[in-house]
Amino acid sequence: MENNQIKNNSITRQEDDFAQWYTDVCKKAELMDYSSVKGFIIYRPYGYAIWEQIQNYLDKRFKESGHENVYMPMVIPASLFQREKEHVEGFAPECLIATKGGSEDLEDHLIVRPTSEVLFCDHYQKIIKSYRDLPKLYNQWCSVVRWEKTTRPFLRGAEFLWQEGHTMHENEEEARTETLKMLEVYDDLGRDILAIPFSKGRKTDKEKFSGALETYSIEALMPDGKALQCGTTHYFGDGFARAFGIQFQNREGKLQNPFQTSWGVSTRLIGATIMVHGDDNGLVLPPYVAPIQIVVIPVAANKPGVIPAAREVAEKFKAAGFRVKIDDSDKTAGWKFSEYEMKGIPLRVELGPRDIEKGQIVFAKRNDGQKIFCSMDEMVEKAGELLKTIHQEMYEKACRYLADHVTEVKDLKELDAALEKGGYAKMMWCGCRECEDKIKELTNATARCLPFNQMGIEGSDTCPVCGKKATKVVLFAKAY
Amino acid sequence: MENNQIKNNSITRQEDDFAQWYTDVCKKAELMDYSSVKGFIIYRPYGYAIWEQIQNYLDKRFKESGHENVYMPMVIPASLFQREKEHVEGFAPECLIATKGGSEDLEDHLIVRPTSEVLFCDHYQKIIKSYRDLPKLYNQWCSVVRWEKTTRPFLRGAEFLWQEGHTMHENEEEARTETLKMLEVYDDLGRDILAIPFSKGRKTDKEKFSGALETYSIEALMPDGKALQCGTTHYFGDGFARAFGIQFQNREGKLQNPFQTSWGVSTRLIGATIMVHGDDNGLVLPPYVAPIQIVVIPVAANKPGVIPAAREVAEKFKAAGFRVKIDDSDKTAGWKFSEYEMKGIPLRVELGPRDIEKGQIVFAKRNDGQKIFCSMDEMVEKAGELLKTIHQEMYEKACRYLADHVTEVKDLKELDAALEKGGYAKMMWCGCRECEDKIKELTNATARCLPFNQMGIEGSDTCPVCGKKATKVVLFAKAY
Repeated sequence: MENNQIKNNSITRQEDDFAQWYTDVCKKAELMDYSSVKGFIIYRPYGYAIWEQIQNYLDKRFKESGHENVYMPMVIPASLFQREKEHVEGFAPECLIATKGGSEDLEDHLIVRPTSEVLFCDHYQKIIKSYRDLPKLYNQWCSVVRWEKTTRPFLRGAEFLWQEGHTMHENEEEARTETLKMLEVYDDLGRDILAIPFSKGRKTDKEKFSGALETYSIEALMPDGKALQCGTTHYFGDGFARAFGIQFQNREGKLQNPFQTSWGVSTRLIGATIMVHGDDNGLVLPPYVAPIQIVVIPVAANKPGVIPAAREVAEKFKAAGFRVKIDDSDKTAGWKFSEYEMKGIPLRVELGPRDIEKGQIVFAKRNDGQKIFCSMDEMVEKAGELLKTIHQEMYEKACRYLADHVTEVKDLKELDAALEKGGYAKMMWCGCRECEDKIKELTNATARCLPFNQMGIEGSDTCPVCGKKATKVVLFAKAY
Repeated sequence: MENNQIKNNSITRQEDDFAQWYTDVCKKAELMDYSSVKGFIIYRPYGYAIWEQIQNYLDKRFKESGHENVYMPMVIPASLFQREKEHVEGFAPECLIATKGGSEDLEDHLIVRPTSEVLFCDHYQKIIKSYRDLPKLYNQWCSVVRWEKTTRPFLRGAEFLWQEGHTMHENEEEARTETLKMLEVYDDLGRDILAIPFSKGRKTDKEKFSGALETYSIEALMPDGKALQCGTTHYFGDGFARAFGIQFQNREGKLQNPFQTSWGVSTRLIGATIMVHGDDNGLVLPPYVAPIQIVVIPVAANKPGVIPAAREVAEKFKAAGFRVKIDDSDKTAGWKFSEYEMKGIPLRVELGPRDIEKGQIVFAKRNDGQKIFCSMDEMVEKAGELLKTIHQEMYEKACRYLADHVTEVKDLKELDAALEKGGYAKMMWCGCRECEDKIKELTNATARCLPFNQMGIEGSDTCPVCGKKATKVVLFAKAY
């Protein structure tokens, strides 16, 4: 009845086929499953629980900084959607459209929200009258639909879970500050929870959000050398506000349009976490986002006293606030080791008859396999230290990989070589769209961002494409 | 610039027009707003925060009892939806249907989920193979769409937020136990959080969920004498499992179909809370669901030291874990009193120069207007006691109203009189559909439930409609 094979053998090795490795892990760690709705996935309990950890962190940060949650309709009348021209052009090709309600054909078709700027603006138009009503700092947790042809679990899907912040401000400065502040919150999430170092910067005009004046992003580098955009914040100026007739009486008693931002991260962060940290044995979850931080596995569980002792140990970890699972099923310890390695649980606790005799347990760290013996008296404190260490080690490893994969390039040949190696090609750029398009055409790489750190490249002050004087530093990479 | 009018004047009085009072409160307490999408509302921050409190309570209860959260697609292929016949007949008339994706016409239309039984079954069919995979105890937090013609905020809408539990079990008994257990969780929510006494019971076959073998419900009684169904749990037997080919190897090694339940409550609970407790001054929120439990209002705030003292007081309440707001704006104290009465905040704290001198504050209870002077040293402890008292008083008041509005009836004349008075007509019933239909036809009342307490009616053992011997006790009422 039991499946005693070493499960990990069933995952493709990263170096054989990274894309297949990724899909294997998503499926076999039971993070998701495919549904009967093409392009739509099922977020299974283990995958959804990762999202809940991300939500817990962000929701707290949002509320601490004065943001309030709201919920807007999941559909947008086509007539309303068309009000901001650039925006509709950007999204129209990937909309799912409802045309029937009950037995009626709908006159005004309903677009399943791909994002909710227009709904927020429509509402803000009604409730913002005076500078006293500002700022409005709203956030929404929901799912959105993008009718994508090619989908990959968590990375690109017809429907994904996200949060979308939408804020309105009295003046440009405050809105610009908000745009950058929320990018910092996302960056903190990466550093403190996901153990992912993000590259932060501004998007080029070509890559910015439809309708935004400026878009900022956090980008993460995957082990296959491709970049993954993990979150964006947008500054809209007063463009939408004008299109939707949002006006308020300012402190001088005059009517004016408010200034707007929006920002979002999605379940794509789960995909980033899987790829950045995973290995050939499966998932490796950073401790602070792991739904289960410690798994307790009794060894020689049939010996008297082992299971009760294991349960007691698990209870102590639970009581200390850790997220703990005990597997005292009749499966073999070997099967369990593989299974929870696959599931990426940061810390395994083993204990057998001899450990119990000695009053000790064994910790095994998922990230590097290291084993640590520890007395039961000290195990709770030690677990906290080890989880912190694991997080730090995982973050540092990701930082080293990132640092090793930013290559400064001065000409097209170096650009090619850098992209061939994988990672970011960091170069000077004249700033013109033609050169950006040219690189895309030649290499299929895109400008990921103009990093906040604009420290120049030694020995280079011209654009590698046109040869003109260049003052901007830009990161190019192939991307998901 | 200031709106100094007593805001409450702008709410219709309950006795003048209860329905208008309800709408006024929903709008003016800023719980919701209408959107540009017909029938869809906007859940504003204050309304959404009530839902978050309900979520916090339920999510904890679900997880403690072994349930896991998942997320399924928001659309269901029409072909899949049709697999369980009764189910599709029940829901088809109120479905929103997507027929276009991007620029394509969809061959298989997509139904925006009105409920997700079929998606869960489709998934369970893939992942349930052995009795070892059971039970599956899944829950989903999401929104669903019902294409309703007549909508009312929170009570009936084209889209509402809810949770839907979907579980699969090895045997009938376990599934039946789950069905009743989750009803108890909802009942606890009413008693402990919403201060609403629910009437619990089984639905008649006429009123049960499309596709269920048995439906149980919690019903609340509104001040206009109408009942509101506030949540349901369903026992499906193995009907869906057969329709979807879900089979598992049981402990005897034979293939069989598992037994299923589903259960849900929605943002309709917000509507119930508004109606059960509200008064002519607006909302009256039960303390444990109130997004703000204590509002601190400085009196004679222009006097030196008052605002700092008020802030200090607010901080102390916050530090003790209460949900606190301080309004130290330059609006008048009178305006603030009205405003936060309208918003139903359970406990108001006032303090002015003389209170500060005496080292005291004044509590005012929203539910009955009572004022209590309290020394600053004791105020934190006192606040906890008062919130508990307020909850208890509100719950008891609602219980008294309910008890006063259950009328035992023996014939159709008494039934009429009872419904005229408002509330439940409690009667014996032969159990046949014809008599149930007849009452609906004559009085427009529906069978709310066969209450768990089946204690008979003295002096009555026949059905008031057909005069035949009757052994079932049933509650009829007009309903939302």
